[in-house]
Amino acid sequence: MLGLKADTNPAWITAACANTAALLIDHAHCERKAAAFAMTLMQRYPTCMDVVKEMIAIVQEETEHFALVFEYIQQRGLTLRHETKGVYARRLHEAIRTADPERMLDMLLTGAIIEARSCERFSLLAKHIADPQLALFYESLLASEAGHYATYTTIARNHFPAREVKRRLTELLEYEADIVRSLPNIALMHG
Amino acid sequence: MLGLKADTNPAWITAACANTAALLIDHAHCERKAAAFAMTLMQRYPTCMDVVKEMIAIVQEETEHFALVFEYIQQRGLTLRHETKGVYARRLHEAIRTADPERMLDMLLTGAIIEARSCERFSLLAKHIADPQLALFYESLLASEAGHYATYTTIARNHFPAREVKRRLTELLEYEADIVRSLPNIALMHG
Repeated sequence: MLGLKADTNPAWITAACANTAALLIDHAHCERKAAAFAMTLMQRYPTCMDVVKEMIAIVQEETEHFALVFEYIQQRGLTLRHETKGVYARRLHEAIRTADPERMLDMLLTGAIIEARSCERFSLLAKHIADPQLALFYESLLASEAGHYATYTTIARNHFPAREVKRRLTELLEYEADIVRSLPNIALMHG
Repeated sequence: MLGLKADTNPAWITAACANTAALLIDHAHCERKAAAFAMTLMQRYPTCMDVVKEMIAIVQEETEHFALVFEYIQQRGLTLRHETKGVYARRLHEAIRTADPERMLDMLLTGAIIEARSCERFSLLAKHIADPQLALFYESLLASEAGHYATYTTIARNHFPAREVKRRLTELLEYEADIVRSLPNIALMHG
């Protein structure tokens, strides 16, 4: 899906479906972090009109998703708690080169890859989760995540040669596949 | 206005009205930072339902304001550029104590005070700026800033004794007044 080079281990689906409370709480944090990531891009690249314009839309959408997840958390009598930090996003961010213009390319492609992985996992949850309201919810988020993947890769191609984007995207997708294969398969959205 | 203990120096109004381009660009960054600040509160205090609920609304509103300012910037043939860092927010943030629960109280009250000061300055701009579109725009933002001031102080009173909130708010308002009296009066929203 969307170029991903490793499928999620079925053990993750079992763990996630067995603990939807933990999954929802982690999901809320993922939406918040996706909005914060888009905000960081706006701050770092204010002179790129496409970045600012598209990141406004992503901040708004991810905040709206956060609000929905927060509503489901409350409806189920759960309480949002502090984030349980997983290794996925941390290790992926380690691949971002520290100087521009490489940093910009890597941030955009990392953003795209996280959206692609979320898309794959939402699709698995939509198929396997027993709670029909949540299954529909995850299904409804698929299109948005795929749209964000397209946004990040399009911006990358607006600012970097197509060949460089392709080469680095392949490299990062392979790096991400290694991370995914090493995950503990626990009830975190990227666990 | 809203408890502020020093009026803005009229020299600031002159400087701001004489350079609306610089003012708009700084204003965009202020809206982005206000959204990011609300997001940080959501991250730090996820177990406080009122914080999460109200910060979702503030992130959405401030991002919407950012989008509007960005539109005005483009309409005027200007380009958003990197932030010119002023001393106001930095010095105000220095007053935030580093350990909870004091940190939470200080963050909420600092948030409230920045909104109050923005409210005062928008009101001055609405009266004095020559551009009628911008005058109306600043006028339209007043109610929202006053609403955010109320939100931050209400949350503070939900979590801390009224007397402690009042005492610390007075202290921080006096500290803020000192900062405002020392500002260089340049075309930054809090310059």
